[in-house]
Amino acid sequence: MSDLIASWVDGVPGASIPVDDRGLHYGDGVFETILVRERVPRFLDAHLDRLRRGLAALAIDFPAADTLRAEIAQAAALAPPLAILKIIVTRGSAVQRGYRPSREERARRIVTLWPTAPLDRSLALQGVELAISPLPLPGYSPFAGLKHLNRLENVLASVQGGIGNTFESLMLSAAGQVISGISSNVFVVRAGGVLTPPVDRVGVAGVMRQIVLREAPRLGIVALEQGLTLDELRAADGMFITNARIGVVPVRRVGEHVFGMTEIVTRLRNAIEPLDA
Amino acid sequence: MSDLIASWVDGVPGASIPVDDRGLHYGDGVFETILVRERVPRFLDAHLDRLRRGLAALAIDFPAADTLRAEIAQAAALAPPLAILKIIVTRGSAVQRGYRPSREERARRIVTLWPTAPLDRSLALQGVELAISPLPLPGYSPFAGLKHLNRLENVLASVQGGIGNTFESLMLSAAGQVISGISSNVFVVRAGGVLTPPVDRVGVAGVMRQIVLREAPRLGIVALEQGLTLDELRAADGMFITNARIGVVPVRRVGEHVFGMTEIVTRLRNAIEPLDA
Repeated sequence: MSDLIASWVDGVPGASIPVDDRGLHYGDGVFETILVRERVPRFLDAHLDRLRRGLAALAIDFPAADTLRAEIAQAAALAPPLAILKIIVTRGSAVQRGYRPSREERARRIVTLWPTAPLDRSLALQGVELAISPLPLPGYSPFAGLKHLNRLENVLASVQGGIGNTFESLMLSAAGQVISGISSNVFVVRAGGVLTPPVDRVGVAGVMRQIVLREAPRLGIVALEQGLTLDELRAADGMFITNARIGVVPVRRVGEHVFGMTEIVTRLRNAIEPLDA
Repeated sequence: MSDLIASWVDGVPGASIPVDDRGLHYGDGVFETILVRERVPRFLDAHLDRLRRGLAALAIDFPAADTLRAEIAQAAALAPPLAILKIIVTRGSAVQRGYRPSREERARRIVTLWPTAPLDRSLALQGVELAISPLPLPGYSPFAGLKHLNRLENVLASVQGGIGNTFESLMLSAAGQVISGISSNVFVVRAGGVLTPPVDRVGVAGVMRQIVLREAPRLGIVALEQGLTLDELRAADGMFITNARIGVVPVRRVGEHVFGMTEIVTRLRNAIEPLDA
């Protein structure tokens, strides 16, 4: 029914998982969305590192990290020129019904290969437009930073009104703090440096966000994690969003506010994942 | 691997679902845990009503409500004397990757039948003991009240330390408000009436909670929804928890605090789901 290209469960080609998987029942697991370009998984070490940290935070034992890396290489070899590998690791099948794991579950690896298209070149150069999600979100999660499978906030923000023809929506906490885009992290350009909201209380520690925070100083650009209200965001010199699929993309409008283009975004993109890569 | 007795997917006997199901990827769905006693699903209308409301809140189109009711009846007919029917309805297989539904997904029904044991009679009479979860939770969710598939908070509260030999843990918000038990709703007895925290900002609107709120007034017991701190809970005359599996069960200890037994709990239990039913 979907546009899935291929899938493997615990290394075996297959398109189904048991109905007793705790990923289905509770969202008890984590995932990674990895861009595959010319059959090479991009930023694989960063993805696998975050996966490992997420599993540790959820107390999911995962001895198969090396096996998963080999499976990713095999899957990437079958990919079209541009594709997404989505990796899910769940706590596995329930040993018994109920929230509390028995500690005898065995983590399950689900590798899925999906088509993707490059971001339209004019959007990548001139910037995307974002709506502002009307869904107020909590400003705190005990799982802040993790890319876990409890993603109803993102789903519901994406079905609420106002997105229209925009690229996606900006998500805000009930207290008015900028959290992220529905599927991206958010940066603003201010005083020649870049700022992004911290992810220690809410949000996802995106791999591309981490790459920007690492690469910016190498380009002489100050990069900080700092909370942002919507007003503070609007007062910035520029804005961009990041994720593993699209890389670094300028934002030209949020709601009714129009941003100017800044050279910093182009410099970061060219250093990390150039348009013609 | 699990103790699952039987399962059906969209009415067909089977123990697997497609890897592209949005319930797995995002927790994009809802569930019900229904007690089946002597092959009769208990409080079925209340469960199906909540399921319907949850699906509507998540904007999941579900034309198969009558079909599901028939499937539940067929599954219950195969149940041992005491069993649990867990019903999951997801948005279905993804039409394309990404949070945003295409609106062309078709909801998937997953009916699973599990063994369960009656609560130990001495616990049911003398009360259970609860630990206090050390995991501070958000005091607000945009999905408050819904029994959705994003249940990592419950899972993590159940793996954190301190539960020991207790029945389960009491979950608190970061601001110190009582939310619920990990798999139960919480009531206190005060001044001859009963109080339970509201579920409009956080928590799950449990079916047994709703039955208690409905039945108490018929017994001349005032029942109110009101926020509770841990101190206010300890100051109460008594305490009980409710869920579809165990019914109405007194609590004799929370952390270090010991509660007395109150006649109200026995009266409510006998009116709703007597021990010898």
